Amino acid sequence: MKRVYLDHIAATPLDPQVLEAMLPYLQEQFGNPQSLHSPGQEALAAIQEARSRVAQLIGAEDSEIFFTSSGSEANNFAVKGMALARREKGQHLVVSSVEHQSVLHSVKSLEKFGFSSTLVPVDKDGLVDPEDVKRACRKETALVSVILASSEVGTIEPLTEIARVCRSAGIPLHTDAVAAAGNIPLDVRKLEVDALSLAADQFYGPKGSAALFLRKGTRILPFIDGGIQEGGRRGGTENVAGIVGMGKAAELALTKLAERRERLRSLRDRLIEHLPLKVDRVYLTGHREKRLPHHASFCVEFIEGESMLLNLDMKGIATSSGSACTSKALKASHVLLAMGIDHALAQGSLVFSLIDSTTAEDIDYLLDVFPPIIDRLRKMSPLYTKFLEENTK
Amino acid sequence: MKRVYLDHIAATPLDPQVLEAMLPYLQEQFGNPQSLHSPGQEALAAIQEARSRVAQLIGAEDSEIFFTSSGSEANNFAVKGMALARREKGQHLVVSSVEHQSVLHSVKSLEKFGFSSTLVPVDKDGLVDPEDVKRACRKETALVSVILASSEVGTIEPLTEIARVCRSAGIPLHTDAVAAAGNIPLDVRKLEVDALSLAADQFYGPKGSAALFLRKGTRILPFIDGGIQEGGRRGGTENVAGIVGMGKAAELALTKLAERRERLRSLRDRLIEHLPLKVDRVYLTGHREKRLPHHASFCVEFIEGESMLLNLDMKGIATSSGSACTSKALKASHVLLAMGIDHALAQGSLVFSLIDSTTAEDIDYLLDVFPPIIDRLRKMSPLYTKFLEENTK
Repeated sequence: MKRVYLDHIAATPLDPQVLEAMLPYLQEQFGNPQSLHSPGQEALAAIQEARSRVAQLIGAEDSEIFFTSSGSEANNFAVKGMALARREKGQHLVVSSVEHQSVLHSVKSLEKFGFSSTLVPVDKDGLVDPEDVKRACRKETALVSVILASSEVGTIEPLTEIARVCRSAGIPLHTDAVAAAGNIPLDVRKLEVDALSLAADQFYGPKGSAALFLRKGTRILPFIDGGIQEGGRRGGTENVAGIVGMGKAAELALTKLAERRERLRSLRDRLIEHLPLKVDRVYLTGHREKRLPHHASFCVEFIEGESMLLNLDMKGIATSSGSACTSKALKASHVLLAMGIDHALAQGSLVFSLIDSTTAEDIDYLLDVFPPIIDRLRKMSPLYTKFLEENTK
Repeated sequence: MKRVYLDHIAATPLDPQVLEAMLPYLQEQFGNPQSLHSPGQEALAAIQEARSRVAQLIGAEDSEIFFTSSGSEANNFAVKGMALARREKGQHLVVSSVEHQSVLHSVKSLEKFGFSSTLVPVDKDGLVDPEDVKRACRKETALVSVILASSEVGTIEPLTEIARVCRSAGIPLHTDAVAAAGNIPLDVRKLEVDALSLAADQFYGPKGSAALFLRKGTRILPFIDGGIQEGGRRGGTENVAGIVGMGKAAELALTKLAERRERLRSLRDRLIEHLPLKVDRVYLTGHREKRLPHHASFCVEFIEGESMLLNLDMKGIATSSGSACTSKALKASHVLLAMGIDHALAQGSLVFSLIDSTTAEDIDYLLDVFPPIIDRLRKMSPLYTKFLEENTK
């Protein structure tokens, strides 16, 4: 059976060059970077080189990169750590309504310790209005967190404008750039954010390796206490091979980004244009232009995302219905609901996210197998039957 | 130059069979375990198998194993998560004075949020007296945490007796078994602990892969919010290859443990017996019998640990002066000070920790190169000069 992987947002495959860079640290170079002896110092040099490469990917300084074990950890670290570090100044948080659950639930945890929060709405394309951020901010606001690009609908937020609002209000700004980093050009100096999360498995690096950029001078509480690693802010023996892999992936992303982006954007557009021609009542979600180059997301009326996903899987196509972190919860996505999509339609969410090896043939294969699947599923759908009855009356 | 690695406590090399088990998950099997499609489900099956193997290593049930990224993270997760989950009942903590910094600093962090703590002393061998734990416990004690075996002095604590004290007082008990797990037999049912930390890099598994055992029904707050992974208690995309590696390492540890322990214990004893015969004023630290089988630690009078370490490194011998997590702080170890060793002598700490490939020739090589190094360093030591003057008067 043909195998087509269109689930970039869940995980990318490892670039073979990344694995090659990692292997020595899974074999003879097994020193602990905090050991003073030669094997330790060699491991330390390797993670410092990786730090430098990750810094370069986003225009940061080496000392501003803190490795973590996932994008979710980086988001928890930023939101909890920055909010708690400023808790004397105020205990109010501002976040958008389309954040990843690792941001939203970090806020919920903080609320158990006395914080309050304001959710900033989005428009029908999932865009945050910087003016709404401005209105939500108070003098006791400790932190603003707005996602850079949504893995669920692909929309890229106006972070530069949001950063301007935060800067003039003197409030630190974190952005979850997990879905974006390595896939679109990012420069933390131009964005003027104070903290930014990124994850290697979104740009052909290993799972279990991610990072938080933290602008020099930004206050934060340590996330893992008790070790001198990561400037004392995130203790624990470093995942040396994983970090080295992330460094190599960052280096490759920087060189390949422009070409990869153009190619995937063109394939994505082919999908966005043709899918609604092949199947009726299929709607693009997220902004048509301001979206991730590898991302095409839809809501298909009258069918649940999970059924489509499993039927596509039987045809060898791997895709998703939203965030992998909540996929099994089978609830309508909070992102789609925040965009004003009604509950029933939101259940029919489907995200196609392209990877480096995706070809035009893959897209054509999808466009071929998709209509009969939908046809069959709709025939079994009580909602669709009802719709047909009402429209043939 | 001959290379002798005697720094097990900082990191073990990866068993080649572990790497072999990991490789598919760094290549074609790159699915996200939370994805509903086939590549995702294959990854999920792999981490569930690993969970089962880790559970077997310590006599736990699969559902009681929560993967983390390091032993330090597991310690932070347990101490902060269990204490905060019980904060309504009381805000007092009991920990031993020889805990790893990731436990001690987690306690310090909790103290900023209203908790208080009692440090339980140890005797000259680093042993905790269960009666002292009993005396330290109050009705408002939320958690007791006592290390299972010290990576700095090798001493194995009487956890079964301490668990009995905690159980009869109705207080949950966590133990940091990072240095012990995979190296000595452990059974959480016999130990009757409620939580136990372990790390793969202490038994020939990968760095960046560790776990917390949490007895069914034990209350804990999530450590990373916002994902359904690890029962909702530790969100974030799983480090699949790392987890698979930890599973394989656990499986191997279980089969190889008895033989490995006997062999290393005999080499360790050779070192413990002969080193003080080769060099005067060298003192074993930690308990002579109740100690990790791969662990020989000493204090060498008149010299700093770091100088010895660097000089040994020049002879190809990798060793440590204590915990890698604090090695560069160059402070006298809190563990040695808690054992009543004076500050100057504690500076001369040296830990030799043996790995699977350590041979009798390695130990003999160390015994050969060690005396001239000490001789030379002592000649440069003002403390030693003063001692000689005083003793030749």
